[in-house]
Amino acid sequence: MLQSGHEALPLRICFFGDSMVNGTGDDTALGWVGRACAAARRAGRDLTFYNLGIRGDTSEDIHARWEYETKGRLPPGHDGGLVFCFGANDACTGEDGAPRVSADRAVANAEAILVAAMARRPVLMVGPFPIGEPITDARVAALSRRFAALCDRLGLAFLPVIDIVLASEAWRKEVAAGDGAHPNEQGYALIADAFTRWPAWRAWIEGGSLSEKPLERA
Amino acid sequence: MLQSGHEALPLRICFFGDSMVNGTGDDTALGWVGRACAAARRAGRDLTFYNLGIRGDTSEDIHARWEYETKGRLPPGHDGGLVFCFGANDACTGEDGAPRVSADRAVANAEAILVAAMARRPVLMVGPFPIGEPITDARVAALSRRFAALCDRLGLAFLPVIDIVLASEAWRKEVAAGDGAHPNEQGYALIADAFTRWPAWRAWIEGGSLSEKPLERA
Repeated sequence: MLQSGHEALPLRICFFGDSMVNGTGDDTALGWVGRACAAARRAGRDLTFYNLGIRGDTSEDIHARWEYETKGRLPPGHDGGLVFCFGANDACTGEDGAPRVSADRAVANAEAILVAAMARRPVLMVGPFPIGEPITDARVAALSRRFAALCDRLGLAFLPVIDIVLASEAWRKEVAAGDGAHPNEQGYALIADAFTRWPAWRAWIEGGSLSEKPLERA
Repeated sequence: MLQSGHEALPLRICFFGDSMVNGTGDDTALGWVGRACAAARRAGRDLTFYNLGIRGDTSEDIHARWEYETKGRLPPGHDGGLVFCFGANDACTGEDGAPRVSADRAVANAEAILVAAMARRPVLMVGPFPIGEPITDARVAALSRRFAALCDRLGLAFLPVIDIVLASEAWRKEVAAGDGAHPNEQGYALIADAFTRWPAWRAWIEGGSLSEKPLERA
């Protein structure tokens, strides 16, 4: 399955995000990140992953911690990349009725994170998840479009997930049967499938090296 | 399966350690941590886990980062605990022929970590893993005994794993078929089973609350 002519070096991937990256609510303890990484290993790629999703994290929180938490996990001399996925908690309503983090601020945080990350490693971005609450989800949809435009401007691959989630009856049922915000196995499997089929991710898994210098713009 | 009369609050658990905590080499992407947490959820406990194992980490590395990385993951107002497991990389031979971290220093690091952690949250400790190299493994065995004595003195539960690993033919075969140091599914399942049966862990999963104040000494 790997491209011939490449020496497929072991990869180390950091996934930064919120509860949807953590896989909160998944009885299999895999989430979409674990499922996608298991699929990559089954496809023959030697991959180590670090799941750095934290429940409740906004773009502010991730901006504050991603560099510190990357340092020991992607040491020099090892191929690796960074995947980011946030925005749902930014869009949630805070105590004053406004979003916890404004859309302008979330986009500024995303740009600061992505530009700094791209200077060091190959980077991918996954869009924010809806949480099943109409006002928040309208903000998530708007934020997803703005993140898509930002990534386009930066020459970065972006995978929107909001429409996949909103179209899924299985997701909706699992959220209702769970804590009201997070799905279970079927929901996370849906995102893992979309991520695994994503050409930008497949290029990492099927390609040769993710060196410390960023890849050419796709 | 939960004790009657308890309101089983959702738990958040941080697992700090090295590649053996990360689950490096496991094609299922679960490791022993993911397997044990999935089993806890199947047993009816609502649990969120953070796998904070980093390849190559010694007790020095974990001492430097565990407080920072715990902060956002175990916020006030949420029940949670800390599980530590390290020592294999301390025992590995460094460039000068000596262990990367001396046994005395590793024990001092462990005490500093555990005492500070116990002041904030319930804590468990799992012993260091052997890596299949005789000189290192003799050091791991000695370190495991010293960590056990330390935990005994601190009133902390300690689960040694070295004998489980060394007695396992499946582990040895998976290490040989893999990268020479890490097992695959069967090896990690073996540790997950031992951890899941461990009374100290079962008390967390079957009990009621892991409050911010440490539990009584068992």
